[in-house]
Amino acid sequence: MPSLTFWFEFASTYSYPAAHRIEALAAAAGVDVIWRPFQLGPLLHAHQGMTDSPFNVVPIKGVYMWRDMARVCGELDLPLRSPSRFPRNGFLAARVVLADKTPGWASAFTKAVYSANFADDLEISDQEVVTSLITGLGADPETVLAAAGSDAIKAELKANTAQAMERGLFGSPSFTTDDGELFWGNDRLEAALAWAANPKTL
Amino acid sequence: MPSLTFWFEFASTYSYPAAHRIEALAAAAGVDVIWRPFQLGPLLHAHQGMTDSPFNVVPIKGVYMWRDMARVCGELDLPLRSPSRFPRNGFLAARVVLADKTPGWASAFTKAVYSANFADDLEISDQEVVTSLITGLGADPETVLAAAGSDAIKAELKANTAQAMERGLFGSPSFTTDDGELFWGNDRLEAALAWAANPKTL
Repeated sequence: MPSLTFWFEFASTYSYPAAHRIEALAAAAGVDVIWRPFQLGPLLHAHQGMTDSPFNVVPIKGVYMWRDMARVCGELDLPLRSPSRFPRNGFLAARVVLADKTPGWASAFTKAVYSANFADDLEISDQEVVTSLITGLGADPETVLAAAGSDAIKAELKANTAQAMERGLFGSPSFTTDDGELFWGNDRLEAALAWAANPKTL
Repeated sequence: MPSLTFWFEFASTYSYPAAHRIEALAAAAGVDVIWRPFQLGPLLHAHQGMTDSPFNVVPIKGVYMWRDMARVCGELDLPLRSPSRFPRNGFLAARVVLADKTPGWASAFTKAVYSANFADDLEISDQEVVTSLITGLGADPETVLAAAGSDAIKAELKANTAQAMERGLFGSPSFTTDDGELFWGNDRLEAALAWAANPKTL
């Protein structure tokens, strides 16, 4: 089965609807999803010298984005509350995604973290919040957090970020196909899946 | 009939497919299109301190954009040749859009200019190129160019740019509905038309 790699950073707003949309759309397209957290901060800094979200650096884009997110999430019946802190640090949560290799873990935990951040206004960098999300999914927080803190998982997240850089990513969500096509943005998810299912020569 | 205002800058790449897509989609949605050229440069400078296209300022975004444009235009069977000069100055062409108030002129000339820039690699800031585009549409270049150079038309373009700034635009293509919703990007055209036809309260 062809696959689509879903690259996401937890601070990213548009990755929230993308994370909640991708499974049903991928199943309909006959495409496997590979969930791949990375850290966007180093890329924004390397490419644009930014040390904050582009939506804070360029406030007019932030104003637009929050209104557009309200429309996009409204259309999907996804709850949205503008978080009291933005962006939030997704470093711990990204390591937890990688810490449990059980099938279904990455998607379930990723959706839970995005909803915590953008629907419930919870501080996703807080270990207690993360613990409660892990518990809510029926996993053992002690085991998962121990794995998340291991050198192997830290190295895996670091490698994801390095590969995101190599593949030309500059934002989240991004999608890459088996033949190396890059698509950026929640809006391009359908096009990315269509390409993954049926690659073109261009 | 509800209307959608289409705000465009001729230097903008994604506005090329948007200009060629909007009429059929708007007709299907039962929405009138108001063609409204503006100058993006002053907005990019005011909001982001940029004096060049964001796709040149941030080269990795440029690499992505040209590949994505190839995919988007390929899907639409719209010819695309990366222009030998980018961005091109659309000041004269924008004034020519406004210079003739005959119904159908704005859409026909706008599409011709985008195709000249992005399909035929022509220098759209060149008066000879613009003259030939006007002639190709069966209008009289002398009359149209005289109007385009008038103080009234210069003031109209300046007012468009000022209104674009007031309405929170920061890129092209942008779309605004009768009730003041702003949508940005070729990807959001369908959502903008759906909103124009059937405004929501959010």
